[in-house]
Amino acid sequence: MLRAAAATGLGGSPLANMVTDRQRNGRLKRRYLARRLEILRAAGREFRVRGFAETGMRDIAAAASLSPANLYNYFRGKHDILFFCQDNSLDRMIAALDKARRMRTSAAAKLRMVMASHLRCLLDEVEGSAAHLLTARLPPRQQRFLIAKRDRYEAGVRKLIAAGVRTGEFVPGDAALVVRAILGSLNWSVQWFKAEGPLTAAQVADGFADYLIRGLLAKPGVFRRNSWEREAVPITRESASVEQRKRSSAR
Amino acid sequence: MLRAAAATGLGGSPLANMVTDRQRNGRLKRRYLARRLEILRAAGREFRVRGFAETGMRDIAAAASLSPANLYNYFRGKHDILFFCQDNSLDRMIAALDKARRMRTSAAAKLRMVMASHLRCLLDEVEGSAAHLLTARLPPRQQRFLIAKRDRYEAGVRKLIAAGVRTGEFVPGDAALVVRAILGSLNWSVQWFKAEGPLTAAQVADGFADYLIRGLLAKPGVFRRNSWEREAVPITRESASVEQRKRSSAR
Repeated sequence: MLRAAAATGLGGSPLANMVTDRQRNGRLKRRYLARRLEILRAAGREFRVRGFAETGMRDIAAAASLSPANLYNYFRGKHDILFFCQDNSLDRMIAALDKARRMRTSAAAKLRMVMASHLRCLLDEVEGSAAHLLTARLPPRQQRFLIAKRDRYEAGVRKLIAAGVRTGEFVPGDAALVVRAILGSLNWSVQWFKAEGPLTAAQVADGFADYLIRGLLAKPGVFRRNSWEREAVPITRESASVEQRKRSSAR
Repeated sequence: MLRAAAATGLGGSPLANMVTDRQRNGRLKRRYLARRLEILRAAGREFRVRGFAETGMRDIAAAASLSPANLYNYFRGKHDILFFCQDNSLDRMIAALDKARRMRTSAAAKLRMVMASHLRCLLDEVEGSAAHLLTARLPPRQQRFLIAKRDRYEAGVRKLIAAGVRTGEFVPGDAALVVRAILGSLNWSVQWFKAEGPLTAAQVADGFADYLIRGLLAKPGVFRRNSWEREAVPITRESASVEQRKRSSAR
């Protein structure tokens, strides 16, 4: 967040100089960051509905209820917004991957955690993250930066699977292709997932993990059948049950 | 093809009136269709490299070595090209699905066939099919038409899986989510697949099918390990070996 703030000029802005009153400064900074998040959400919606090329800063400002001039206090342009969305999602995905890899649990449970966090980043938290998919629209330098980061993430997931193969938990196979199949399933969900649809992001993550991990397990019989035969369970969007699913899927 | 030809005005063009010399007419029509295919390839490349919004008919004409005026003899506009790409891919995918469902073989073999044909449509035959992914850019009526067709295809794949569950070949599960995971893996391949890369489309289809079908099998032990442990096999792009893989994956 600090790096992003510096990149958009927060470091040199009047906001950053108000260090005399720390409380007030903290409040202002929180408001600034909250507003940034609102802008990201609005921009993500506009990018998806109009398409990135057809969306102007003016449209994003209108969607976020800001004046265009004010919007430029937060982001230098729509490419900046897109870059921030993607960079931010990737950082969160990599953090979740690192956390999973450090845990003392099965490779299957780790992979389940990674999938859940990946989908949460794409579908849940900031609508703007859905712009995750539009790398080709960024200037070459930013694009290369994000692709390198994405490759690092992909390599991490591959290592997680390879570790499962080494212990005999997973069957041996073409880990590179498997990772691409898994990440493809997850990324493509942006195309069909509707927040107002029958499934929450956590439920999609759960169902995907059930199926996609089963294909790797050396002994798929061990697989917990309960959630796999979930169809009979009525689907609610109550946040408590979502939280429960999230926790159980992170186990 | 006929419908598409009619839509672009072939029916009423001078070409269609030359029925007196059937041979000559046939030759002209073949040339016309071959040229259309070239245009679709060129357009697909341009859409992917520049983005759909940034690509004009002038760019497509240049890429296909045609004058802009001549290009309009083949397509009324870039939306027409995009629609044709998508409609055509879907028709071929649905035809392959219908063929697979009629065959007397296991559900796994049928699903493998469907996956192979899906990837062939996306990656192999016409580069323009990669534009398959850009439905949001079409006028609402065309979009609705394609979405309905895509839903029909998705429902067909779902039925194929459900049939496998009924016979006990596949484990019971959330078929709708499984189909979305499978199609997501396949569709996302457009993002990373490189024709000049180490794997052919048929090899990707094979590797994906190995993994994605294993997750469904009630007895994954039956799984043919040879291709799953393909990593040790040197990868060639020789077309004979590709054909061989295609045939073996369609079995």
